[in-house]
Amino acid sequence: MRPILWCDDHVEMIDQTALPGRVDWLRSGTSREVAEAIRSMKIRGAPAIGIAAAYGVALAALGSAATEATDLRRELEEASEFLAATRPTAVNLFWALQRMKATWERQADVAGMRRALVEEARALAAEDEQMCRDIGRHGASLVPQDARILTHCNAGALATGDYGTALGVIRAAHEAGKVRQVWVDETRPFLQGARLTAWELMQDGIPCRLICDNMAGHFMQRGQVDMVVVGADRITAHGDVANKIGTYSVAVLCREHGIPFYVAAPYSTIDPKLVEGRDIPIEERSGDEVTAIAGHRIAPEGVPVANPAFDVTPARLVSAIITERGVFRPPYPESLSRALKTVGRPD
Amino acid sequence: MRPILWCDDHVEMIDQTALPGRVDWLRSGTSREVAEAIRSMKIRGAPAIGIAAAYGVALAALGSAATEATDLRRELEEASEFLAATRPTAVNLFWALQRMKATWERQADVAGMRRALVEEARALAAEDEQMCRDIGRHGASLVPQDARILTHCNAGALATGDYGTALGVIRAAHEAGKVRQVWVDETRPFLQGARLTAWELMQDGIPCRLICDNMAGHFMQRGQVDMVVVGADRITAHGDVANKIGTYSVAVLCREHGIPFYVAAPYSTIDPKLVEGRDIPIEERSGDEVTAIAGHRIAPEGVPVANPAFDVTPARLVSAIITERGVFRPPYPESLSRALKTVGRPD
Repeated sequence: MRPILWCDDHVEMIDQTALPGRVDWLRSGTSREVAEAIRSMKIRGAPAIGIAAAYGVALAALGSAATEATDLRRELEEASEFLAATRPTAVNLFWALQRMKATWERQADVAGMRRALVEEARALAAEDEQMCRDIGRHGASLVPQDARILTHCNAGALATGDYGTALGVIRAAHEAGKVRQVWVDETRPFLQGARLTAWELMQDGIPCRLICDNMAGHFMQRGQVDMVVVGADRITAHGDVANKIGTYSVAVLCREHGIPFYVAAPYSTIDPKLVEGRDIPIEERSGDEVTAIAGHRIAPEGVPVANPAFDVTPARLVSAIITERGVFRPPYPESLSRALKTVGRPD
Repeated sequence: MRPILWCDDHVEMIDQTALPGRVDWLRSGTSREVAEAIRSMKIRGAPAIGIAAAYGVALAALGSAATEATDLRRELEEASEFLAATRPTAVNLFWALQRMKATWERQADVAGMRRALVEEARALAAEDEQMCRDIGRHGASLVPQDARILTHCNAGALATGDYGTALGVIRAAHEAGKVRQVWVDETRPFLQGARLTAWELMQDGIPCRLICDNMAGHFMQRGQVDMVVVGADRITAHGDVANKIGTYSVAVLCREHGIPFYVAAPYSTIDPKLVEGRDIPIEERSGDEVTAIAGHRIAPEGVPVANPAFDVTPARLVSAIITERGVFRPPYPESLSRALKTVGRPD
């Protein structure tokens, strides 16, 4: 279930705000349209945002009237800045844009830049799918037989090039016959769990059960959750994890109940420039996402609202970080930095 | 803001499923209509359910064609059983029905039973309001100056005879000038926080901020929550607390962050017949409450759902239990049983 398709002169993306009611494919022919799709969360999920942004740069190159490389470079810089301003928390967005910039800087002429940028964006998408399958393979080895796994938000095929990160682990474990049931947190306010994760799991025939976010602790208390796996939008060099709001609470509940809490993400999610989780910028979104659901008002007019889109789970609550390069264990400052030295930085 | 009014031959109750969009008064002239209002959560909140059930018994007496006391007693037994079957978790419901039964058993004739049952139900409602004010007074003494208080669900005027239990504490603290802000958990799936608590606080001009349930941990982590106060549907003799689903998770988060977690409830909420929280029956409600909001479907058709309406917070996570008879501290087996011996059992 690939959520972003490259179609020669435009991209098509599943409009994730219409799921699960309808599977609408949204056509974006310009970098501005791609940026708007990211901002409005029609496309979401840290890896998918990175892929979409890379395609956005490619579309900017294709759509440009520039005939000189310097003119095109200036336009690409502008398009990149515009794309970078859509969502502040996911590091994949910035990493993908840096990679596209390195690509156009290697080219001398306009035609070469266009060709190379399209190729690079497509390569990035293909690599992402392969990464997810590798993450799934590494993660599945951590899943016990007959597991009841809880996940929060959607770190699935829809959030990536395909297959998913946290859902990649669940898919690979399901393929190995290990999954008894997946608990799906609905994930307020945007309901990515109810709308997207439940839909993906049902499409693949993986047994699941939908709950409200505030029920996770109850089922942990009753001994009905064996492990938790979630995705990540940014991971610091010391292993602090920014992910969808509510992740931190799930991690605290896991610690209380002695349940392993795993984070599954591409290695590029690790931001070596950040050490402390508190330095990660947290996007604050419109209060309307909380006070209205599908246009129906659920709270009094004028009520003040807070709507942070992410929270930060400190490394001490993370049992392991599952990447395409393997499984990292605490202490993360050592394990992650050893990996950085061995295999090089992602960018 | 009294949510239930006695009107000589019927009751009028604010339809809490229509709030905050509309303030509709629902007219119930029979015990069956009252039972249906309880079952469908048009009236909800443990103390308010008890008051409604008492009025339901009074209406059964008024509406009966019986001329013999034995016939009326049989009808009242049936009405009580029917009312008792509406919601299994709140002890106030059973306690109110027992009190009504003791009332009709003291009367020899039909006219006396009718008169006494109406008087008893009205007395129960009036006592409940006074209890809430006493709870508020005791609880306000625990609130620090300039407090940022988080509450879950609605333990407000709407859930009681008037004034509220947890919101009674907040109201009394606000009257004493101590409240900087109230964090309101929206309280999925039924959204009592977003719909009812936010509305009550705004009516009274108490500063509040609405959040999704999964955001509470984030704001605790950032040091922006000074205390939590919630209501209760049933408390065991050892201090385990059944309350709205999600309460347990809030209590675990409080422990993690060293934040006091208070429970405010009428003394009658303590069920001396129950010791362990795991013995409290937990109502499982329809999955439709999770998968649809105001008739709008938010999850895939056919997705399996769990929807426990309550959870149990173990006594070890409860900093104090605030009742109209004072504040009880751990160890609860001792403090609660001492109170039972001193002042007698609630029933």
